[in-house]
Amino acid sequence: MSLYGTYDDNNLFAKILRGEIPSVKVYEDDEVLAFMDIFPQARGHLLVIPKNIRARNFLELPANRVAPLMERVHKLAIATEKALKPDGVTVTQFNGEDAGQTIFHLHFHIIPRYSGERLAGHGHSNKADIAELQAIAAQISAAL
Amino acid sequence: MSLYGTYDDNNLFAKILRGEIPSVKVYEDDEVLAFMDIFPQARGHLLVIPKNIRARNFLELPANRVAPLMERVHKLAIATEKALKPDGVTVTQFNGEDAGQTIFHLHFHIIPRYSGERLAGHGHSNKADIAELQAIAAQISAAL
Repeated sequence: MSLYGTYDDNNLFAKILRGEIPSVKVYEDDEVLAFMDIFPQARGHLLVIPKNIRARNFLELPANRVAPLMERVHKLAIATEKALKPDGVTVTQFNGEDAGQTIFHLHFHIIPRYSGERLAGHGHSNKADIAELQAIAAQISAAL
Repeated sequence: MSLYGTYDDNNLFAKILRGEIPSVKVYEDDEVLAFMDIFPQARGHLLVIPKNIRARNFLELPANRVAPLMERVHKLAIATEKALKPDGVTVTQFNGEDAGQTIFHLHFHIIPRYSGERLAGHGHSNKADIAELQAIAAQISAAL
């Protein structure tokens, strides 16, 4: 199946970008929104998504949008490490269902890793405590 | 343990960059070298590393090197999809041993995914056939 396709304006992240669904924001500007993953694979798992673009995945992102997106992913990864002091950080991005993608608006994952702690599966269904996510988001945001 | 540290000039990728160890090249310019992972997690697994920089991981990469690196990762991910027509593509990057990093020169993985095929573990030891890697590298390179 092709990795290129029609963008669905009703995907979850499109709704978050339109403010129809709430999110726990870490950072926002004209280019990106960064917010906490509500089903975190580890404590501090956040997502960075480009705004004003109908790109289902990284392959569909126009070349001139790569730099602004990735500069922000970089800054946010650094801030996440600074704020939470994890033992590792994974930066990852899935293109296509067969790569594990579940929401079809391009997103980069920044996932703190803690020694001896396995990642929870991607797409598990243990919803995080919102107040806790808000506290973590505030910590990362303060470290930017 | 801090994710910041001293760059070891004798890491495997530093040796590849200096030409002391061979690699199956896909692409090279002033900014990056892209080459096939010799222990591929899936067919077509390639690595993109920045040149002329002593950065152990993404956090240590100077901000002004992010865009040139990621623009090339983007192009190579697109070319990989075009050349190999996998069912998915994973773009991933590990910071720190606890995130699964094994070689301490910053590298991005581009990993094709095939329907119904699980990834081989990162850091497994089934060395790929070099002739086969060369054929795949030529295909990806031609799709750039």
